Amino acid sequence: MRINRTRLQKHLEKLAEIGKIGETGVCRLAHSKEDREAVEVVKGWMEEAGLTTKIDGFGNLIGRMKGTEKDKPILMIGSHIDSQPYGGRFDGTAGALGAIEVVHTMKDNAVIPKRTIEVICFSDEEGSRFNKGVFGVRALAGLLEEGELERKDKNGVTRKEALKEFGVEPDLSESPVYQKGDIEAFIELHIEQGPVLESKNKPVGIVSGISGPTWLTVTLEGFAGHAGSVPMHLRKDAMVGASEIISKFDRLIKEEGKDTTVGTVGSVQVFPNSRNIIPEKVEFTIDLRDIDLEHRTKLEEKLYTIIEETTSSYNLTHTISEDTRSEPRYCADWIKNIMKAEDKELGLDSPVLMSGPFHDALFMSYISDYGMIFVRCEKGISHNPLEFAEMDDIEKGVQLLYQTALRIAQGEKE
Amino acid sequence: MRINRTRLQKHLEKLAEIGKIGETGVCRLAHSKEDREAVEVVKGWMEEAGLTTKIDGFGNLIGRMKGTEKDKPILMIGSHIDSQPYGGRFDGTAGALGAIEVVHTMKDNAVIPKRTIEVICFSDEEGSRFNKGVFGVRALAGLLEEGELERKDKNGVTRKEALKEFGVEPDLSESPVYQKGDIEAFIELHIEQGPVLESKNKPVGIVSGISGPTWLTVTLEGFAGHAGSVPMHLRKDAMVGASEIISKFDRLIKEEGKDTTVGTVGSVQVFPNSRNIIPEKVEFTIDLRDIDLEHRTKLEEKLYTIIEETTSSYNLTHTISEDTRSEPRYCADWIKNIMKAEDKELGLDSPVLMSGPFHDALFMSYISDYGMIFVRCEKGISHNPLEFAEMDDIEKGVQLLYQTALRIAQGEKE
Repeated sequence: MRINRTRLQKHLEKLAEIGKIGETGVCRLAHSKEDREAVEVVKGWMEEAGLTTKIDGFGNLIGRMKGTEKDKPILMIGSHIDSQPYGGRFDGTAGALGAIEVVHTMKDNAVIPKRTIEVICFSDEEGSRFNKGVFGVRALAGLLEEGELERKDKNGVTRKEALKEFGVEPDLSESPVYQKGDIEAFIELHIEQGPVLESKNKPVGIVSGISGPTWLTVTLEGFAGHAGSVPMHLRKDAMVGASEIISKFDRLIKEEGKDTTVGTVGSVQVFPNSRNIIPEKVEFTIDLRDIDLEHRTKLEEKLYTIIEETTSSYNLTHTISEDTRSEPRYCADWIKNIMKAEDKELGLDSPVLMSGPFHDALFMSYISDYGMIFVRCEKGISHNPLEFAEMDDIEKGVQLLYQTALRIAQGEKE
Repeated sequence: MRINRTRLQKHLEKLAEIGKIGETGVCRLAHSKEDREAVEVVKGWMEEAGLTTKIDGFGNLIGRMKGTEKDKPILMIGSHIDSQPYGGRFDGTAGALGAIEVVHTMKDNAVIPKRTIEVICFSDEEGSRFNKGVFGVRALAGLLEEGELERKDKNGVTRKEALKEFGVEPDLSESPVYQKGDIEAFIELHIEQGPVLESKNKPVGIVSGISGPTWLTVTLEGFAGHAGSVPMHLRKDAMVGASEIISKFDRLIKEEGKDTTVGTVGSVQVFPNSRNIIPEKVEFTIDLRDIDLEHRTKLEEKLYTIIEETTSSYNLTHTISEDTRSEPRYCADWIKNIMKAEDKELGLDSPVLMSGPFHDALFMSYISDYGMIFVRCEKGISHNPLEFAEMDDIEKGVQLLYQTALRIAQGEKE
């Protein structure tokens, strides 16, 4: 049984028209008019696929196909269809529409699943509008924080108002929607958003887990002075210290990190940032990720030593603030094993790789076993209109999603 | 013959009241109401010192004491009395009021100079208002550029309008005011604006020259990507490259620079500057100064090699733009020799040091021999209300200025 590539492609192309910017870009901010329009269109496709649909109070779109064994924990498949403000056509949508294609293919083939299947388009995965994302999935899993409905967008509209405008009535008492044990497995297909599959020349990858980041902000303080009049040996130059740390951190990760370790300084702020004044203060971010938590912790400790030694030798003071510390979440072995077996069947020879970016699946992991399939994307570009995935690759990924889902839907675990 | 410390201190304190901000700050922008008020007050002190005064069409305040030998090239002494928007009480004023004190002391002692002496308060040294300074001195020396009178401040007022409001009629055909040969020597006293004298525990310094800077802007380009998904070996991280260059540049100057070499990266801009995106582009400035031009050039060439090698090893592209390339201007040996002799007389044991920042004297050097005296300032802080110089130190510096001026005024050269 093969999925219907033509139908899937048509859906992808049609959805890319909603909130289209330029030739290839998309802007569908969470709970916006465009988001609502997209939800309506996708809801229609869910219904064509034989699903009973609803939109919950958090903006999640859910389609249900009843299984014959009603007491069995369900299978959930899906992703999101909201986008970054200057986003692309494949982030989220490949997995969301791929999931619909999976059940549509079952319907086409008159497959009646044993487990109930739910296809989900989570609301506000991206988080751009209210500066905090994965809203829908966290509502589902009971992971919302206080005051989330009162967060405002840049026009002063609260999430609560936006959801009402979107057409739903948010009610925090409805979260969590699911408890542990309700869902046997959650499976998400997503574009890789990185260059690993391209570099390995493989269309599809099987995800081993999502390595949550440690996010730190490091602030170094020295002493400003005229660039022309303070001799080198009397300087306390915060930028020289920061540069030394950034270089050494990069070398540390390259030399002592595993294949799965990444370390990035993405943001640097210099004060007063004037060409003829010695930098008094530099603030920079650290993003450190590894699927191996113990190894990540070891590298983080080495980074602290680097910061300590460097600031001391450059006569600087420093503070380190911890902004986020997520733990890695591993995909379930039994789901990976099914994927690997079906992958072999399909002759894809898909590599196993970890996910640096997080996904809805990360939060599903707290209430369910989960698995993820990655689809190659060009140059690893994402969150950009240039984002691109070949239809051939998406087809292969969705076919693997289908075969995996089918085995789980038919009751399999192991 | 000793200068009158009490009178000098009174003048410094009174001038600090004009445009005063907070307890110790000053804001006297070029050609402003406060600037004009200061010029009037200082003009009065010039007249008390026996000088015939005028304000020229460029806003320069000039006081003249006629010498007995009218054909001899004149001696000029002075500095500026305008300030930074958030400036201190000593930058410029110590030298301008010190110069008046010099001729006042001559008058007190009935000294009739052989050379004519002019005391000058140059207009708009600081350059904050029209984003281009040393205006008065450049007018004097014939170094104005096209369109200078049409430059606008942030309220849209042109320099020409500001000068009219100030009360003078600018006429570019009057520049240059002096030709080579008209002035035998220009001497300027200024606070050091750096920490060298403080670190040597000396109140006064004799300047060897002003080392103009080479100003470059270096732009590195790599490729953005998600901080979580691009493996280290596939990255083109512009910030890692920039850090490596900044570190190596600092090491180069510290290891191969002379005492007089300074190198600074004061400004760094990262794009897109987001904590979970690999930096695609980094732009940073280079400020490189040395009184030894040949040595500066050698170091600059080594910097180019560092940039070349680093960008190549990190898979980055780069461009380097040259924003300024000033040549060092040396103080005249014969003036330095007089200063050294008088310094010995005074038992000051003043060190010889170069000036990183430029001064009005830099531009006077194109039409006259020049010399400079530095006065220690606390922690090297300047262009800030915290700027501070001890009255004891200013007195010593002005005494040396007096004795130097006296010998030159009496006809000495060598």
